Amino acid sequence: MQELTCIKSILDEAGPIAIEKYNDRASLRVSSKLNAVDVLTDADEYIQRFITERIHAIFPDDIVIGEELGSDTFTDEIRQQRAWVIDPIDGTQNFVRGLFPTFGISIAFVDNGTITAGGIDIPGLNQQFLAAKGHGATRNGESIHVSSVPILVEARVEVDYGNPINRADVIAAFTEVVQQSGEPRCHCATVVTLCSIACGEMDAYFHIHVKPWDYAAGVLIVEEAGGTVSQANGEAIDVWGNNLGLIASNRILHQQALDTTVLPK
Amino acid sequence: MQELTCIKSILDEAGPIAIEKYNDRASLRVSSKLNAVDVLTDADEYIQRFITERIHAIFPDDIVIGEELGSDTFTDEIRQQRAWVIDPIDGTQNFVRGLFPTFGISIAFVDNGTITAGGIDIPGLNQQFLAAKGHGATRNGESIHVSSVPILVEARVEVDYGNPINRADVIAAFTEVVQQSGEPRCHCATVVTLCSIACGEMDAYFHIHVKPWDYAAGVLIVEEAGGTVSQANGEAIDVWGNNLGLIASNRILHQQALDTTVLPK
Repeated sequence: MQELTCIKSILDEAGPIAIEKYNDRASLRVSSKLNAVDVLTDADEYIQRFITERIHAIFPDDIVIGEELGSDTFTDEIRQQRAWVIDPIDGTQNFVRGLFPTFGISIAFVDNGTITAGGIDIPGLNQQFLAAKGHGATRNGESIHVSSVPILVEARVEVDYGNPINRADVIAAFTEVVQQSGEPRCHCATVVTLCSIACGEMDAYFHIHVKPWDYAAGVLIVEEAGGTVSQANGEAIDVWGNNLGLIASNRILHQQALDTTVLPK
Repeated sequence: MQELTCIKSILDEAGPIAIEKYNDRASLRVSSKLNAVDVLTDADEYIQRFITERIHAIFPDDIVIGEELGSDTFTDEIRQQRAWVIDPIDGTQNFVRGLFPTFGISIAFVDNGTITAGGIDIPGLNQQFLAAKGHGATRNGESIHVSSVPILVEARVEVDYGNPINRADVIAAFTEVVQQSGEPRCHCATVVTLCSIACGEMDAYFHIHVKPWDYAAGVLIVEEAGGTVSQANGEAIDVWGNNLGLIASNRILHQQALDTTVLPK
């Protein structure tokens, strides 16, 4: 499909830009959003502008919504439109501090409220994930599938601890998950973890506060790889809605993942 | 010093062996130790034998102690000897499942109870860390230093959740750490995280159950990079002792890290 081809072509260009800026991260201009650990860099802004311009060059009438320059409330009108949802760098803290490096670039295409194409590039790992609705998911062109780990005590799960402002909510919701899981992890880059679920390296993911640019591409990639994504109460994710958290899994573990989560009040 | 030269030379050879086995991980023979998530592979055994033979070729009378083929109780006699402590693959779960890939090879030389040389190779990231007592620490030959993050609420910290068997102890000890920290992470490869602390990518690390092969090289690397490592009660790490956990930090955060930890009863 034309939109997926567009996503792949843009990610192929954006990945090397991100790596160039990562390698020169000592000279990044870093500003804080909510607090000291919630950061924004001029690289985020630059890549978001780059992706937006590339999309508009091909689809000039489509809406483009990104983390760094836009709003995070969505009117009902958007549900009837062609919209692109982008995160120029998810895992900005890892990008700035240099961890591993674990960060990703995410682009999704949403057609009248349905995510129909999505791509995530993890340039520090030379991995690119793509999915089109009904056509499966790939990593670097090869078909991928979720894991078959059957029980939580054998599973590798990730809990996202988010921002200190919401930390008590996360601890309340997911301490039982941490207690019962085989190997808890936390990497703090939602788009990277959703790819890890899709390709079977991780088994389940728990996040309380998510926005469309965190999950739009990743939800499709996980689902097309055979996994399940829902809100923490089990309801379907509404791409433009105020979702009650996000739980992603290899499908087999999903009910156990929901049962182990304490729903926020 | 001769021992550090030996460590570097062995790691230069062992790193590519680990990557070769990692790339062929579908054919690994994986067995469980304590339970399904505590795994051992034939790659661990192979690399441990390789390192041991290389050490004995140069220092035939020295003791070599490794995670995978040896004991984990140490007689008093060892305190008066020349001993090498090796972990052929730390982060075996990541090695087997393919996460990032975050795993490391660790070799330390302990002279009459004092760690005097240490090296950790993270072949999936092309990073090699070395330290000699009193001579600083390096990554790929360049001098490294811990971060200067001054308070926990701005810090990137890692809590190691360990094995499900001990999970309740970890949650009891470190939930307040998770509550108060800027960005909690968990990667489950102690040797990798100690390197992250040493080079300033992470700020503090909390682990309840550790063995000499987990920390022997990493403690020296962190300390030589300007950081602090202690037991959870603040006492010095005893390389051959039953330590009450391990807390590593950028030094500035150390007292706050200790104060926020609830000591195991």
